[in-house]
Amino acid sequence: MKFALIQQNSEFDKEESIAKAGKNIDEAAKAGADIIVLPEMWNCPYANRYFREYSEPAGGKTFSFLSDKAAEHGAYIIGGTIPESREGKIYNTCFSFDRKGRHIGTYSKTHLFDVTIGGKIAFQESKTLASGDCTTVIDTEFCKIGIGICYDVRFPEMFRKMALEGAKIIVLPAAFNENTGKAHWDIIMRTRAVDNQVYFIPVSPGKNPAGVYVAHGHTMMVDPWGQVISEAGEGEEIIYGVADTGYVDKVREELPLLKQRRPELYSK
Amino acid sequence: MKFALIQQNSEFDKEESIAKAGKNIDEAAKAGADIIVLPEMWNCPYANRYFREYSEPAGGKTFSFLSDKAAEHGAYIIGGTIPESREGKIYNTCFSFDRKGRHIGTYSKTHLFDVTIGGKIAFQESKTLASGDCTTVIDTEFCKIGIGICYDVRFPEMFRKMALEGAKIIVLPAAFNENTGKAHWDIIMRTRAVDNQVYFIPVSPGKNPAGVYVAHGHTMMVDPWGQVISEAGEGEEIIYGVADTGYVDKVREELPLLKQRRPELYSK
Repeated sequence: MKFALIQQNSEFDKEESIAKAGKNIDEAAKAGADIIVLPEMWNCPYANRYFREYSEPAGGKTFSFLSDKAAEHGAYIIGGTIPESREGKIYNTCFSFDRKGRHIGTYSKTHLFDVTIGGKIAFQESKTLASGDCTTVIDTEFCKIGIGICYDVRFPEMFRKMALEGAKIIVLPAAFNENTGKAHWDIIMRTRAVDNQVYFIPVSPGKNPAGVYVAHGHTMMVDPWGQVISEAGEGEEIIYGVADTGYVDKVREELPLLKQRRPELYSK
Repeated sequence: MKFALIQQNSEFDKEESIAKAGKNIDEAAKAGADIIVLPEMWNCPYANRYFREYSEPAGGKTFSFLSDKAAEHGAYIIGGTIPESREGKIYNTCFSFDRKGRHIGTYSKTHLFDVTIGGKIAFQESKTLASGDCTTVIDTEFCKIGIGICYDVRFPEMFRKMALEGAKIIVLPAAFNENTGKAHWDIIMRTRAVDNQVYFIPVSPGKNPAGVYVAHGHTMMVDPWGQVISEAGEGEEIIYGVADTGYVDKVREELPLLKQRRPELYSK
């Protein structure tokens, strides 16, 4: 099960972002990827003032582009995120497609990025975005794959739930900023993999110091023992990694964490 | 709020372990520690065949020693763990005492270390030990402090619960082995601190290659932003660190994770 993780930046011209994604998806497919993943907000500059203007409904242009590309190449596409318009609201949404281009999952970010870190970063996603109201695990021919988005990763409960629902891989389109990226990206991503004994795959835009939002980059693929098996730098690039569900099973047998839980102790 | 973290190894002679702890506690108190912490199983070799022989009831010799030392120095003692005998069973238990030597908390490990990692480590604590049936948060003059023990740390749910119950600091007597220590100690401890926005303080025995169980060492104190503010090496030593509950409050204000949870989404 070969993953291609596309670390690409959004452009102000949406057409340009889509054209770049097309080129990257073509390259990933040529390299034999079974599952191709895009980053968070890859077709829209990451700032509140752009979300509405760039938003599209399910079935819209970007959605159809991703579906067509999946069918063209016979590869799964986990489409990163785009601003989705739905019933007058805007969501930060990830659409997924199977090898025939069929839509197999919609996940809208449930934990919005509302933070104010003194002098370093302030962002209030909830000014513009509405939050999703369910978690999402998609079915593939390989295994179940959980989908989270960026700030969701700070809530371990959500990833535990996905593992308990059978996910052996979790994909996270994510645009951490420089500050929290340096402090937390590596340890959080690896710990989510170790705790839930899954391949954990955060996919970021590249770091564009001239952009409206400077992302951390460092797209990575972490195995269920917490080892980083593939990692991007800061720039735009495609990285690859192979996931082995047999290894997930082995780790879960050696350290049977999911069976050793004591749920009766955890609720207040 | 000054912590002293005592990284000491157990001896085959229990009297010797207690004498060593006494010397270390005296030194820590002299250095001005408000809260003194011992590691997991510091008065008993860490192997199933020793737990019963070395076990003592609450109120027994080791318990009284810790209580007396707390009162003597006017310092809190979080007494690491010892094998506790109770109603015919043996528990891996942490007793805590306030500045007057009064017993303020008992926590018995709830997640027993039952693992078999091919060729590297096999341990079945449940062969000898019974598991506790509740989590524990103790009250101090500074703030609430949650107590976990070693393998518990692999269950993020438990630490989240303590944070929701008001803990601003979590102490974890813990004896990771060399293998899992190298792979996971640093990232898990730091991520528990970051997720729950607490000082996270794992206290280990030293690494004794000639011992019946070779621990990882690396006792550490992690601040609520995930930074390691104090860390031991592999040998026996006492390390110190200052916790500031005001900093916990600041981090929780900047990134209000505990308020942004979506509990309605997490249960299956």
